[in-house]
Amino acid sequence: MPEREIRALQERVYRANMALRELGLVVATFGNVSGIHRPSGTVAIKPSGVVYDELSPESMVLVDLDNRVVEGTLNPSSDTRTHVRLYARFPEIGGIVHTHSKYATAWAQARRALPCFGTTHADIFYGEVPCTAVMRDEQISRDYEEETAVQILETFERWDYRSTPGVLVACHGPFTWGNTPAQAVYHSQVLEYVAEMALASLLLTPELGGIKKSLLDKHYLRKHGADAYYGQKSPGAGRDEPG
Amino acid sequence: MPEREIRALQERVYRANMALRELGLVVATFGNVSGIHRPSGTVAIKPSGVVYDELSPESMVLVDLDNRVVEGTLNPSSDTRTHVRLYARFPEIGGIVHTHSKYATAWAQARRALPCFGTTHADIFYGEVPCTAVMRDEQISRDYEEETAVQILETFERWDYRSTPGVLVACHGPFTWGNTPAQAVYHSQVLEYVAEMALASLLLTPELGGIKKSLLDKHYLRKHGADAYYGQKSPGAGRDEPG
Amino acid sequence: MPEREIRALQERVYRANMALRELGLVVATFGNVSGIHRPSGTVAIKPSGVVYDELSPESMVLVDLDNRVVEGTLNPSSDTRTHVRLYARFPEIGGIVHTHSKYATAWAQARRALPCFGTTHADIFYGEVPCTAVMRDEQISRDYEEETAVQILETFERWDYRSTPGVLVACHGPFTWGNTPAQAVYHSQVLEYVAEMALASLLLTPELGGIKKSLLDKHYLRKHGADAYYGQKSPGAGRDEPG
Amino acid sequence: MPEREIRALQERVYRANMALRELGLVVATFGNVSGIHRPSGTVAIKPSGVVYDELSPESMVLVDLDNRVVEGTLNPSSDTRTHVRLYARFPEIGGIVHTHSKYATAWAQARRALPCFGTTHADIFYGEVPCTAVMRDEQISRDYEEETAVQILETFERWDYRSTPGVLVACHGPFTWGNTPAQAVYHSQVLEYVAEMALASLLLTPELGGIKKSLLDKHYLRKHGADAYYGQKSPGAGRDEPG
Repeated sequence: MPEREIRALQERVYRANMALRELGLVVATFGNVSGIHRPSGTVAIKPSGVVYDELSPESMVLVDLDNRVVEGTLNPSSDTRTHVRLYARFPEIGGIVHTHSKYATAWAQARRALPCFGTTHADIFYGEVPCTAVMRDEQISRDYEEETAVQILETFERWDYRSTPGVLVACHGPFTWGNTPAQAVYHSQVLEYVAEMALASLLLTPELGGIKKSLLDKHYLRKHGADAYYGQKSPGAGRDEPG
Repeated sequence: MPEREIRALQERVYRANMALRELGLVVATFGNVSGIHRPSGTVAIKPSGVVYDELSPESMVLVDLDNRVVEGTLNPSSDTRTHVRLYARFPEIGGIVHTHSKYATAWAQARRALPCFGTTHADIFYGEVPCTAVMRDEQISRDYEEETAVQILETFERWDYRSTPGVLVACHGPFTWGNTPAQAVYHSQVLEYVAEMALASLLLTPELGGIKKSLLDKHYLRKHGADAYYGQKSPGAGRDEPG
Repeated sequence: MPEREIRALQERVYRANMALRELGLVVATFGNVSGIHRPSGTVAIKPSGVVYDELSPESMVLVDLDNRVVEGTLNPSSDTRTHVRLYARFPEIGGIVHTHSKYATAWAQARRALPCFGTTHADIFYGEVPCTAVMRDEQISRDYEEETAVQILETFERWDYRSTPGVLVACHGPFTWGNTPAQAVYHSQVLEYVAEMALASLLLTPELGGIKKSLLDKHYLRKHGADAYYGQKSPGAGRDEPG
Repeated sequence: MPEREIRALQERVYRANMALRELGLVVATFGNVSGIHRPSGTVAIKPSGVVYDELSPESMVLVDLDNRVVEGTLNPSSDTRTHVRLYARFPEIGGIVHTHSKYATAWAQARRALPCFGTTHADIFYGEVPCTAVMRDEQISRDYEEETAVQILETFERWDYRSTPGVLVACHGPFTWGNTPAQAVYHSQVLEYVAEMALASLLLTPELGGIKKSLLDKHYLRKHGADAYYGQKSPGAGRDEPG
């Protein structure tokens, strides 16, 4: 492992974990962020069940893509197997976030996909955010966290993980991902925000449908792809990731 | 351009943008404030997609009424064409705000006009706040931000922009305006507040109708027009704008 | 007017106004607190439309029971006539608060009395908090703020203002009162809190009725009257007023 | 009483009471935490109706298991008899919390048990959190706080207090307990959080049922019992209690 790059990864993952709390996306210790160093296949992830005030960059546990701890004395997050499996199957992502944020979790508990009701949503997620099936009993009796990844991956056989950087795991809560840990946090923040607005929208218009394809295309492609024109071209000012 | 007045405008627009965030009306970078210097036709507006902590008065981009950047190295807000078009058609306004604030956006997503259910609303908005039609496909394929202004202006053929200083753009979110950037922010703040209360009121009484004309007149005219008696006559204490 | 007592009153009223904002009960300048010095019939009240950061004890306007300003260069709150009229008719109160707090206002806008669904409510309000009738057109065309008091007083012909220290003015918002300005603020705080919980309770059980009389009596009388046993008997620790 | 241990208990109970407020679980003085020193049967509990800013470790009142004050000049919490009775009947607990937190109280007011809709809930509460029956009139006329404990204990004839560390008292609010005062606070925090999410979930899917037994078992037993694997084995990093 290239020492300097790994330390920088731990620092980014630590900061992203702290940002989760500052953004109000976690209660107690229920949430975790990881990041990956692709060349060496090393994942840095929050330790399991440690309070936020005791976290530090060095306490981010390092694991390899076989779920083995390669550095660190603490247990990695209990969700590590889910993260690692997603890294293996989503080659273009650099960070993953799992939270129990209120409204995204409420949709996951209600076992409903989150429709795209407006441009706030369409700017980040290209259409509805899917909800997985409820896990089957034989899956639960196997490796639970591994099977959580299986649930997500089965769902994404019909979705593109690059334009839909998040999912609701039924009865559980959201996972999001992105190019970096910070971008994955940003996607969790927007997901929670649009999940809350979507509930309010439904209370106002119970039969509400998602926005039409032409508007979805316009907004998503305003920020993503070759013809994007939102934001700054200069370095230091990102397109869909603040900071 | 008269240098000193333009710098003062940038300062006011900068402060109004920061106030948006302090008031909890923006998530991430989703929101922008502009102001206009009427004599020279110069608009100062937030740059596109820059995080709030990196904003400064000087970073407020200057554009003319033909949407050309006249000063600044950053791209102006992607919504600039909407702002500029509104300034051209609403001659008495000095500031415009666009947000994705939660409850105003929920009403916009639900594609419903916001009824006037009480005096908090009536103090600022003289009756319901309209919701535009959903944009037609041929509009979306043209200049999207320009057409957002078209949607607003079509709506205001039947409304007075001076007594209804805001609108809900269907599937998108609210725009508000005012004499100054600060007053436009104030109108966004009140719009969000009454949008939240209106949803709660509807949950309590689903068939609720707006307040009657006599009460609306009384409250709106208590604060606006020749016979207004709310607030202070002395300078430094505004009528419907705090600070 | 006894100078020292009046200054102390202004100080208390100023602090109570600032507490309103700290408790999140006001948006912008929408809210006011007054207090009365009974021996001289002098009321201290927030000036109209002044931002909170510019308030001071000295800026609390002094008016007499005929609504005449007896000291101060600022206009008193536009709601002053309502306050003064209530002081005249509710001889045992020392402070009055008016807010547009979110949930209490939502109930007022929905034109519904707030039922007593639990002990949090019953500890302060002895049964439901009534909602006035909507003001009649001939009242609106007269002195609006005076008639707001008339609406409240008509409602309290059938209620005891001492055990129900608050009211919802239809289409408008709540007024509360108490022995002191601070206690009136406390009653506004609890009213807002129980108004929010009551909406959530109704969403869970739409046909929910108020708590039974025996439980209401038990809780209210635990804190009020000769047999109260909640709190401390010693000075400095109040019964139903914190601080 | 062993002096040093009792002082340490008061310190823990004081900190837990302050944490309640920091977590936003109390309005005004409506909430209390106690802790017990099992060897001597001494309970430390918040004094009644004292504002939070005036609390200190020494002001935590000491009572014995017969409800007699053994040290302290302030009255203990009016709910002391409820706490003491629960300590007597739940031998494995070390701390108790009572709050009027918004959403848990809304469920209590709606007189509904809180279903387990997801893993956030299942991690702490092994299935639904029960709601007591409404107190009978003859109970109310007896010792009210004693009878509150009776209501809870009748409910727990059919539940295990160790795997369901909390209850909703009908028309009143939640009580939670734990190994320590801090853990009992943690359980109140999670209860409030899942109560809010459960309401949102029901608004999305009104006919929603609880999660299936296999998933409940998996999540609860991931954190509790001999085969738990969440968190750290090392001291200083708890299993289901942060800090």
